[in-house]
Order: sequence, then C-alpha cells, then structure tokens
Amino acid sequence: MMNTDKDLILLGHGGGGQLMQEMIARLFRPAFDNPALLTGDDSAVLEVPAGRVAFTTDSFVVTPLFFPGGDIGRLAVCGTVNDLSTSGAVPLAMTAAFILEEGLPRASLERAVVSMQKAAAEAGVPIVTGDTKVVPRGGADGMFINTAGIGVIPEGVFISGQNARPGDVVFINGTIGDHGMAILARREGLPFRTSIESDAAPLAGLVQALIAGGVVPHALRDPTRGGLAAALNEIARQSGVGIGLDEPALPFKESVRTACELLGMDALHLANEGKMVIIVAPEDAGHTEAILQRHPYSKECARIGQIVEDPARRVYIRTAYGSSRLLDVPLADPLPRIC
Amino acid sequence: MMNTDKDLILLGHGGGGQLMQEMIARLFRPAFDNPALLTGDDSAVLEVPAGRVAFTTDSFVVTPLFFPGGDIGRLAVCGTVNDLSTSGAVPLAMTAAFILEEGLPRASLERAVVSMQKAAAEAGVPIVTGDTKVVPRGGADGMFINTAGIGVIPEGVFISGQNARPGDVVFINGTIGDHGMAILARREGLPFRTSIESDAAPLAGLVQALIAGGVVPHALRDPTRGGLAAALNEIARQSGVGIGLDEPALPFKESVRTACELLGMDALHLANEGKMVIIVAPEDAGHTEAILQRHPYSKECARIGQIVEDPARRVYIRTAYGSSRLLDVPLADPLPRIC
Repeated sequence: MMNTDKDLILLGHGGGGQLMQEMIARLFRPAFDNPALLTGDDSAVLEVPAGRVAFTTDSFVVTPLFFPGGDIGRLAVCGTVNDLSTSGAVPLAMTAAFILEEGLPRASLERAVVSMQKAAAEAGVPIVTGDTKVVPRGGADGMFINTAGIGVIPEGVFISGQNARPGDVVFINGTIGDHGMAILARREGLPFRTSIESDAAPLAGLVQALIAGGVVPHALRDPTRGGLAAALNEIARQSGVGIGLDEPALPFKESVRTACELLGMDALHLANEGKMVIIVAPEDAGHTEAILQRHPYSKECARIGQIVEDPARRVYIRTAYGSSRLLDVPLADPLPRIC
Repeated sequence: MMNTDKDLILLGHGGGGQLMQEMIARLFRPAFDNPALLTGDDSAVLEVPAGRVAFTTDSFVVTPLFFPGGDIGRLAVCGTVNDLSTSGAVPLAMTAAFILEEGLPRASLERAVVSMQKAAAEAGVPIVTGDTKVVPRGGADGMFINTAGIGVIPEGVFISGQNARPGDVVFINGTIGDHGMAILARREGLPFRTSIESDAAPLAGLVQALIAGGVVPHALRDPTRGGLAAALNEIARQSGVGIGLDEPALPFKESVRTACELLGMDALHLANEGKMVIIVAPEDAGHTEAILQRHPYSKECARIGQIVEDPARRVYIRTAYGSSRLLDVPLADPLPRIC
C-alpha cells in the first residue's frame, strides 16, 4: 500500500504555522499531556525547591529507528533519565526536540512518540516542552530526537565520577553489551535474531531505591557509547584511581557472548542503555547488593571489581587464571549511530 | 587547498571514546569554560533558589550555516535565551548538543562554537553540558545544533501568551523580517547582498531591563518561524482576544521592504531572531517605550497595535487608508530551514 501525502511528514510540519500547530495539537499534546505543556508558551514553567538541580542533554540518531527491545523514542527518554540519575537526581521534567526528514511516515513519528510517552510515564517524568524541525529529503536520515532533562538532587547526596575512592566496590546492574549487539544484529541481519534485545530502561527508580535504602553511591555512570570500557576509564581519570575488574564476575547473556566471539568484538566496548555502574563504599556493598537484587532492573546485578590506588589511572581485568590485562578506552564506539 | 583527514569531523568524534574525549578537551571545554562543565560528569549540577524555573529547547537546522549577521551557533544560543526570556526568566544555564555530518570541516564546527561562546557570554548564561553525535556522510546536512535552557523567573513575574487583555498595547523592539530575508538573499544569491543582515540577538537583557524598570509585560513572544503573523495569532488564540495592528507603524528596513515587494513575499511571515513582541498594560505603555528606546536592541522599537475584544480571536491590520485586512497564520514558514 502506498503512503499518501497525508501519511507523510511534510516540510511545513516544521514551519511554525498551521501545519505545525495541528501536529502539536493532534500528536504531541495528547501524548505528553501535562499542565506545563498545555499553556502553549515557548517555555515551560516549573516549581522547584531551593537546592541543587541536575541538567543534561543527549541527541539520538540511532539506526534503525526500531529494533528488538526498544526504539529511538524509548532510547531518547531513557538516555536522559539515566544521565540525570548518575547524579542521584529525581527527574523533574524533560524536553523533546525532533528533527524529521521530509517524507518520514507519520506512523513512524507516532510510534516513537507513543514509546517516549510510555518510557516517560514509567520514569515518572513529564515531557513539558519541545520543538519540531523538518529538513528536506536527504537533509537528515529519518528522525533524530534530542532530549534535555532537569532533576532535583536530594539534600546530602553528592555523587560524581570524581568521588571513587580506593577500596570502593564496583557493581553493574545486569548483563553487558545487550543494546550494542541488538542494534548490530538487527542492522547487519545477523542470524542471532530472537534472543538479543536492547536493554533500554529508565533507571531513576533503581537509583532512588538505593538512596531511599540508605546507600548513597560514590559514583554512578551509565555505560552507553564506548561501553563499560569507556565509562570505567572516565571514572578512573576523573577520580585519579585505578579500577580492577574480575573477569569471571562480568555478567553477559550467553547469546551476546557467542555473537561477540563470532564477530571478534569485545562486549566491554558495546553500548548499554539500561545499565548503571554503581560504585559504593566497601561498608555499603552488602546492603547495595541486597537492594539491587530486589529491583526489576537489577535482578542480574553483579559485583564486578573494586577501586584501587593507581596514579596511572588504569582499568585492568583479572582473568580467572590470575593474569591481568589492561582495558583501554576505545578510540570510538565500534558501531556508529548506536544511540 | 585540500582538507586532510585531520581537518574533518570523523564518525569517531561522536563515538564516546578517545577521539570524542579529545574534541571535548580541546574544543568544547576551553570554549564553554565553567565549573559545572569541568566536572566531566554526565549531568551538570546547578544551585537554584526556590521558586519557578523556565525550561525550553530548540533545534537549529539553518542553511547556510553562516550568513550575514550571524550563524547557526549564534542562532542556537539566541533562540533558547529568547524563549526563556518570553517568560521573564533570567537565563541560568544552557546545554549544547551537536549532530555533525562526517566530513564536516572542523573549522566550521570551531567557528560555530566560538560564535555560541560569544553569544552566551553576551547573554550571561553558561553552557554547562552537551552532547556530540556524528552521522555518516549523507545522514545529516553539515551540522544541526540543539540547545536547551533553564532560567529563574523572578518573584511576582507572571508572563504568558495567555495574559493579553483588551486595551493592552503591542510593541516590537525593531524592524521586522530581517533574519528571514537575510537567509533568503544569501541562499538564493539574490542581489540584495550588502544591506540585509540577520537580527539574531539575545534579548534577556532587554526583558530584564523592562522588569527592573517596573514594567512586567502581560505577554512576550519572539516571532521566529512563521514570523510576526504566527506569533500574534498564537497569542490571540491563547488569550482569547483579537489583535489590531497599525500598518503605518510597522517598522521595516527599506532593503527588506524592497526585497519583499520584488519577491512577492510578506515580511510579516518572515522569521526574526532578535525580535520580541511586547504586550503591556495601557498604563505601562509610555514607560515601556522609554525603556526600550534606551536599550541597544530596541532603538528602533515601535508601538504597532493593541489588543481588542474579539471572540473570533482574529489578528487584523488597519491600513493608512482606514481599511483593514486579516493577518492569517501562514500554513508554514515560506522558507524551510530558516533556523
């Protein structure tokens, strides 16, 4: 069945006039329904308590737009919710800005918007304002989404990649490399179809469960582009410490491990979109593990290593055989447009 | 002279690894230097007072990237600063997210970044966090920039497109349609080269000058895509009022007026990037005009009309001859990729 013009995004949908107003009224307002959005002003107005606010942004250019376990809309919400969560912030509000290619099926936009709405509802964060631009055919590839978010950091919570200390324990909330391999398998038509799904998930609830349980992590980082390798090397550099990982403790889905072996890829370089590196004081490790094991997004959590003194700020892996190797930060993520 | 590889943006610059870290360290951190950015965490942390915060976002896809009177970087800062200003907010912080096409000259990115830095410094707002994605050649057209911003709304200041009341006076801070015509002239190689420049400017200072001078406007709107026609029709709809404009009072640059006549375009549909519609109570009109005439971005301000009762929420123009015509909201901006 051919798409007719009215099923496609037109240049005018980004033109600031009637067509754009209609799309806002019919699609965005009903989906993202909340009082701040409904005023129709250029800025959303929010009440905040005095204190510290976290502020973050990410653009999403993933291809394909829809993939096993998620889509660009879910990714766009989870990415920003998770970046806010790395500071311990409770997400307060998000923005959603779309860059659409002329000729994109409206159904694709609608599907992404519904997915954003669901992920935002799950994370408990309203999408309060946005923007839509349309560029002519060939000017952009389908759909790009930018989200920005603000969150309120609870009093007494100071979490930063700068705060990892020797002796601290390193957790991850589940299996490594799922998102990157799901995209790769889908994009390249690899035969690992059924079993590999993106882990895209909003982790604000998990971080708040830790804080409510009395655990304030020293550092949190969501290992997206560049994977666990990039995330840990960033923390090592920021905090001026070394990080030792225990290879046998690293959790992988069997399907992802097999796919990595076949393709000669290192899962530690693959992006995750529902994972959090959680670094806690040694005396909090047991309690952390207990809280994580009870939360739906951390049932497969693992204690994967610890922070050590190392002026050279290296991240290394101890194998099951007692040898060790350096885990370098990759030059770049092995896959372009992974998120 | 050929560009060598090291002069071009590579896919890896958006890959979350070493190449991206180097670009952040060499380009973004020095340009946008501020304490929140320098922590290296995924969220910036800001102190806010208790009260109301404005939150906004815009993506910029303008082509060409550089044009008389501005460039995509200046536009990206001014657009978000001006959206915040429409609520009376004092801008507190901004984000900057780049989507770059593989092969973009690094010099173009650097030029846009320097321009953002200058505009942000002028507006007194730090760029505290950001994101960079790179898509393969053909996946995006050169460079897109998204900015989001937060600002603090002073106590007692309630400005909204919903608050225009019959009797209110409508001002604009200067000539109409400059940005749209500057882009059009440059893009199409029209012979109006020298005299038509974009008006891109951050207007936070102007709005704060009004508030500091004791004038709290009822409504503010920056007439970007869709021009003054779209902005006024939005306010009429939001507030449930009519708006009457006095045609002889509308300020135009002679060059823009001539270009519009030649091209058969209506300057009221052209985008502005340094203009603000300012709607004030009638008793504040004189004082408003006095303040505007003293500010560098409103020396050519004009009192262009007033709010009237009209259940049909129409915007109309009274000509010098006493006749009047409706000013419709355009279907879309006459120019795609104007901002």
